[in-house]
Amino acid sequence: MRVHLDCFPCFLRQALIALRFGTKDELLQETILKSILGNIEKADTSKPAAYTTTFIHKKIRKLLGSDPFKEIKSEYNHIALRLYPAFKNIINDSHDPLWISTRLAIAGNVIDFGIFSSVDIEGTIHTALNNPLAVDDYSSFSNAISTAEEILYLTDNAGEIVFDRLLIETIISLGKKVRVVVKSSPVINDSTMQDAEESGLIRVCEVIDNGSEVVGTILEWTSSAFQAIFKNAQLVISKGQGNFETLYGSEKKIFFLFQSKCDVVSKELGLSTGSMLLKKS
Amino acid sequence: MRVHLDCFPCFLRQALIALRFGTKDELLQETILKSILGNIEKADTSKPAAYTTTFIHKKIRKLLGSDPFKEIKSEYNHIALRLYPAFKNIINDSHDPLWISTRLAIAGNVIDFGIFSSVDIEGTIHTALNNPLAVDDYSSFSNAISTAEEILYLTDNAGEIVFDRLLIETIISLGKKVRVVVKSSPVINDSTMQDAEESGLIRVCEVIDNGSEVVGTILEWTSSAFQAIFKNAQLVISKGQGNFETLYGSEKKIFFLFQSKCDVVSKELGLSTGSMLLKKS
Repeated sequence: MRVHLDCFPCFLRQALIALRFGTKDELLQETILKSILGNIEKADTSKPAAYTTTFIHKKIRKLLGSDPFKEIKSEYNHIALRLYPAFKNIINDSHDPLWISTRLAIAGNVIDFGIFSSVDIEGTIHTALNNPLAVDDYSSFSNAISTAEEILYLTDNAGEIVFDRLLIETIISLGKKVRVVVKSSPVINDSTMQDAEESGLIRVCEVIDNGSEVVGTILEWTSSAFQAIFKNAQLVISKGQGNFETLYGSEKKIFFLFQSKCDVVSKELGLSTGSMLLKKS
Repeated sequence: MRVHLDCFPCFLRQALIALRFGTKDELLQETILKSILGNIEKADTSKPAAYTTTFIHKKIRKLLGSDPFKEIKSEYNHIALRLYPAFKNIINDSHDPLWISTRLAIAGNVIDFGIFSSVDIEGTIHTALNNPLAVDDYSSFSNAISTAEEILYLTDNAGEIVFDRLLIETIISLGKKVRVVVKSSPVINDSTMQDAEESGLIRVCEVIDNGSEVVGTILEWTSSAFQAIFKNAQLVISKGQGNFETLYGSEKKIFFLFQSKCDVVSKELGLSTGSMLLKKS
C-alpha cells in the first residue's frame, strides 16, 4: 500500500508523540521535529509509508541518543501481563478458544504508542471483544490453522505481545508449532526480543528476529535468514497495520489481524477508522 | 498566542485541503506539499501560527497560479445568502435581536474551508444556536455596543460574512456606525472585498481592507491607513480564531467571537475543541 499525501501530516504527528516520550526539552523537540521535515521531503510515494517512518524514527532515536519508547513499552508489557490471567480464564472457559484468543489478539492491537499517546487497555479490550469484526475471515483462518503444521507469527507492538501470547498458546494447544518474529532492535513501540522476554513469550515458543529495525515488514531490508524463513512459511499470521501496509499484496498465505488506525488505510479498505479485521491475503 | 509544535502537522493538513481545492493533479499536489516543508522548517515559534500559515498559503497560490478557494468561497456566500431570510426572520421575531444575531455570527464561524473540507451549514448553525457559549461575555458586549458610537468589525471567512451581515445590521439598527474590515487580497477562505459584495454587506455599511493578505490580523503587516483606524477604534469586534490568535493580548477593547477549532487553541483556553466563545480581551 503506497504512502498517501495524507500521511505527511501524520508523520509529524507521530514524530511529536515519540519526541514527547523521549524528552521534556521543548527546544530539542523543535529541533528534531524540524530535522524530520527533510525525511518527509524525500518520501517516495511509490513505497509504503513504513519506508519514511522507519527513517524518521531512526533519526529520532539517533538525535535523542536513546529509544523514546523504552519505558512505555515495558510499562505496557507489565500492564498487559497483569490482565493476562483473567483473559486466559475467559479463553479456557470458552467453547471456541481459538475464536476468543484471535479476537483478543486483534483487540490487543489497540496498544500502539506510535499512533496514540495514551490507551485504556482493559476498557478497550472489553469493548473490542463485544464489537463485530469489520472483515471476518475466521472460518478460513480456522481451517488454515487446522491444516498447517507450523505457523510464522509476525508481532507488532509491545504490550500487545501479551495478547499475541494468548493466541499463540491456544494455537500450540492445538498441536501446532509457532515461530514468532520480533524486530532485531527498537523501532517505535514494536516488539523486540526484550518484549518477548518480558511478555513470557520466549518460554512458550521459538522467537526469532527479522534482522531489521523497520516499521512493518519490508522484506528487502530483513536478514537473508529471515527472508528464507518467510519464503518457506506454510502460513503467516501478521499483526498490525504496519505489517499489513508492507505485506498486503504478497503471494504468501497471510492472515492479517489488526485494527485500521488511520483514515488512509481505512478509506482504502472501505472501512471506518478503528475497524477490527481478520483479513485473508 | 505562539505557534505550538502541534501546529506543524496541521500546517500540512491545511495545505493539503487547499491543494485539493486547487488542483486534481496529484503530482503537483505532492510537489507543492513538499515545497511547503521549507516554510515549516522556518517557523518562528515566538510568533503566532498565522505567520507561517500566511507564507504557506501565499506559496500555494503562487505555485498553483490561482486562488484554490475562489469557487468554494463564492459557493458558500450564495448558500449562506439563501439561508439569510430565514435567519433574518428569527432575529426580527426575537425579544433580543442583538443576542440572537451575535449567536448566529459565532455559529457562522463554523464555515471554514481552511480547516474543514466540508461543512453542513444549516444543521451546524441550528445546533450552534441551541448550545451554550463556553465563554459568554455577552452582557459586557451588549453594554460596550450601547456606549460605543462606532464599531470596527474584523471579518473572518467567506460564507460566514453573511452571518456577520446579520449581526452588523442589528448593530446598525441600534443607531451605531459599523466599519467592516476585509483582506486586501485572497488568503485561504478569508473574506475580501468581493465577498463583501457577494454577501451584500457592501450595501449595508462601509467596508475597508486592511492592506494585507495575512491570516488573522498581524498589525505590523497591515497598511498604515488600517493601523491608524485600528489604533483609534473605540470598540473592535473580531471574528474567527486567526484574528484571536494574532490579536489576543492587545491593549484594545476587543470582543472575540469565534469557535475554537483546534486542540492547541482549545487547550490553551481550557476548553474543548469546537467551543463557541464571546470573549472580552
